[in-house]
Amino acid sequence: MSKSTIGVAVLGCGTVGGGVAALLMSQRKLIRQRTGLDIALLHVAERDITKHAGLPGAPFCTDAEAAIDDPRTGIIVELIGGTGAAATLIERALRLGKPIVTANKSLLALRGPELFALAKKHGTCIGFEASCAGGIPIINAMIGGLVANRIEALVGIVNGTCNYILTQMTQRGVSYSQALAEAQKAGFAEADPTLDVSGRDAAQKLAILASLAFNARVAERDISVTGIDSLQEADLKFAGELGYVIKLLAIAQRGKKEKISLRVQPTLVHKEDQLAGVGGSFNAVSVYGHAVGHVLFYGRGAGRTPTASAVVSDIVQIALGVTPLAFKQLNLLPENAKVSLLPIEDLSSRYYLRLTARDEPGVLAQVTKILGAHRISLSAVLQQETSDSQFVPVVITTHLAREGDMLKALAKINRLKALRPAAICLRIIDPPREFASES
Amino acid sequence: MSKSTIGVAVLGCGTVGGGVAALLMSQRKLIRQRTGLDIALLHVAERDITKHAGLPGAPFCTDAEAAIDDPRTGIIVELIGGTGAAATLIERALRLGKPIVTANKSLLALRGPELFALAKKHGTCIGFEASCAGGIPIINAMIGGLVANRIEALVGIVNGTCNYILTQMTQRGVSYSQALAEAQKAGFAEADPTLDVSGRDAAQKLAILASLAFNARVAERDISVTGIDSLQEADLKFAGELGYVIKLLAIAQRGKKEKISLRVQPTLVHKEDQLAGVGGSFNAVSVYGHAVGHVLFYGRGAGRTPTASAVVSDIVQIALGVTPLAFKQLNLLPENAKVSLLPIEDLSSRYYLRLTARDEPGVLAQVTKILGAHRISLSAVLQQETSDSQFVPVVITTHLAREGDMLKALAKINRLKALRPAAICLRIIDPPREFASES
Repeated sequence: MSKSTIGVAVLGCGTVGGGVAALLMSQRKLIRQRTGLDIALLHVAERDITKHAGLPGAPFCTDAEAAIDDPRTGIIVELIGGTGAAATLIERALRLGKPIVTANKSLLALRGPELFALAKKHGTCIGFEASCAGGIPIINAMIGGLVANRIEALVGIVNGTCNYILTQMTQRGVSYSQALAEAQKAGFAEADPTLDVSGRDAAQKLAILASLAFNARVAERDISVTGIDSLQEADLKFAGELGYVIKLLAIAQRGKKEKISLRVQPTLVHKEDQLAGVGGSFNAVSVYGHAVGHVLFYGRGAGRTPTASAVVSDIVQIALGVTPLAFKQLNLLPENAKVSLLPIEDLSSRYYLRLTARDEPGVLAQVTKILGAHRISLSAVLQQETSDSQFVPVVITTHLAREGDMLKALAKINRLKALRPAAICLRIIDPPREFASES
Repeated sequence: MSKSTIGVAVLGCGTVGGGVAALLMSQRKLIRQRTGLDIALLHVAERDITKHAGLPGAPFCTDAEAAIDDPRTGIIVELIGGTGAAATLIERALRLGKPIVTANKSLLALRGPELFALAKKHGTCIGFEASCAGGIPIINAMIGGLVANRIEALVGIVNGTCNYILTQMTQRGVSYSQALAEAQKAGFAEADPTLDVSGRDAAQKLAILASLAFNARVAERDISVTGIDSLQEADLKFAGELGYVIKLLAIAQRGKKEKISLRVQPTLVHKEDQLAGVGGSFNAVSVYGHAVGHVLFYGRGAGRTPTASAVVSDIVQIALGVTPLAFKQLNLLPENAKVSLLPIEDLSSRYYLRLTARDEPGVLAQVTKILGAHRISLSAVLQQETSDSQFVPVVITTHLAREGDMLKALAKINRLKALRPAAICLRIIDPPREFASES
């Protein structure tokens, strides 16, 4: 190899790994034209040799350790996933002072700060653009383009599977289970969709993005998580009638006394909000900075070629020397800066409540009395005629209220004899006040 | 100053210059925490000393050359604007090997390649994130995050003044002149709005973005430009009835035989398109890459603090050493790589036509006959009752047609005695076919 050739080893040849290997081979000339760098794919380490057939001409091997150790290998791309073998291989490479590129959000959310410290100790770096929101260059923006900003809030649709399912439920009125089955058939959901639909995958991405936004250590366990698996189509319908769309949002927000609230949950988003228009498997992240105001990044959050686009951009930035410099200087995913969390009961939010009430006088009065006693005032009430002569759905939206107050009120409401348990309670998000008018 | 302190001189203290000086002073600690760099504002050079009062505590001076020459000055921020004094000062700094940060799109569109070559010759660099789309980190994304992509198309709303005016015309049905007067009153349009409403400002930004997208020299004169100043409110209304919004779009698209089409023009965008929802003074840029698919960047395209956010991010990237490295290696705004332009008559597009026809039989038949003879087929026709008994508006949308055929057909249509000259003709944009279904 010539002096300016950089050798790359790709570990794992699944969907993304195969995409990266293919992109490196097909775009070698384009990358050389743009960057002056010759990036050579040296190894594709994949134990499952049935996968070797899918990528003719690729330099396959089965020994990942040998691929790492090869002195010609300058950059290691970990696309095995999970927190087991992937971690061991990453540590091996870092100890050799070799830079890592990874899309492994589970591992970074769990052990990111430790691995980043190990990389620093050995004078090397980790590129992780592909770990959040696929092809959208959001990590780069957080680290670079928005560096002068005090970040007030970050609100993202960061799980394409959930967004695909919710889009189907909203547009076609189908149930969660039907939408999930269709998503699985269309390849937008795994056979075991738990990690996605539980909100965990979104929480792992939020942990990484919030760490960058607030320069603090944010772990998955710091985040309050609700998935989409118990959502009922009725709530998407009522939300629509009120002018909202339900999206699974990952939210990190600076509150009083610099405390940070962190949550993943199905949330009502106003139809005029840019996030409401993010359909299908697309992702989007809104960031609110004190100087830049509202910026939003939109694109494909998963999939073979979009994720490969992010991985290869990391490879190029490392080969250029840009990432090693930034990594050395910036204290990314710090080990010891604990985030100061806002207790969930202190969160201030607007709420959507759906009650199923016996069709008799005075029920709404009882509910509003309880809410009022907890300093919660109503914004809108929706009660429609129904074919069920005994029970009617009543939908209420509130003005801003404390979560602690709402939880107490809910407990009392759920004890009312005139209601079927349990009331459905979802949060409504409005853009941070200072950025509310996007004129 | 300590060894790790980087001295900055800001030249010009208008809206953006003042914002940059204020941001550097207020965020010095935050930037130090995030980056380990101490960025010190050493000089704010502004000849108009009445402006000095607006920024108490800033290190004002009136001699820009002395500020550049000061050996403690490590980075020069040019925010004077225009192609005269600004160019001379930039050249002076570059000859001293000092890096430049600028938001000066006019100068870059006119002499960018030459200035970039000068910077390279003297071993230094130019940061220009703020030259396009204000606070949106689009330059960084084009250079970095999307580097592995062959860019197929770039479609942007890059002039906030025009977008503000068009949003008012669309939402409130007011005329262009009324919307312009209101925009001027609200501070969203200059007293002399020509540069904005003529489309020239958007063309200058497109020249820069297209140069990066296609790795070629694109000049303002390569771009076909139509402004918004002759738009009539009737067309915004009819577009709305057909399911479209009219936006001033800057479009660069790769066509047959690698030829590039470049245009700025009022264009019909489908209401479901993400760009249709970009309201007020906001900007957005859609990029279509062969691997990443559709990505979109949204945010404030102008204004004091958003633009300052981009300028300060450039200062930080230069201070970190990241930009100098990338600049050395990447052939940005190349001097000698001429773009291969698609002749405008070979452009393929859908069209919107508004005719004003005498209310008599056979007029539509004459028009469709002419269109048919030029291989142009209709997609929709809209003809409504009117109070004018003599003339009626007829709106036609077409399927894809060659621009050359449409121009010939239009010339014939405008000679029809049954029509009032001249027909209004606007283009309709659909997303590139391969990305049309964003599921």
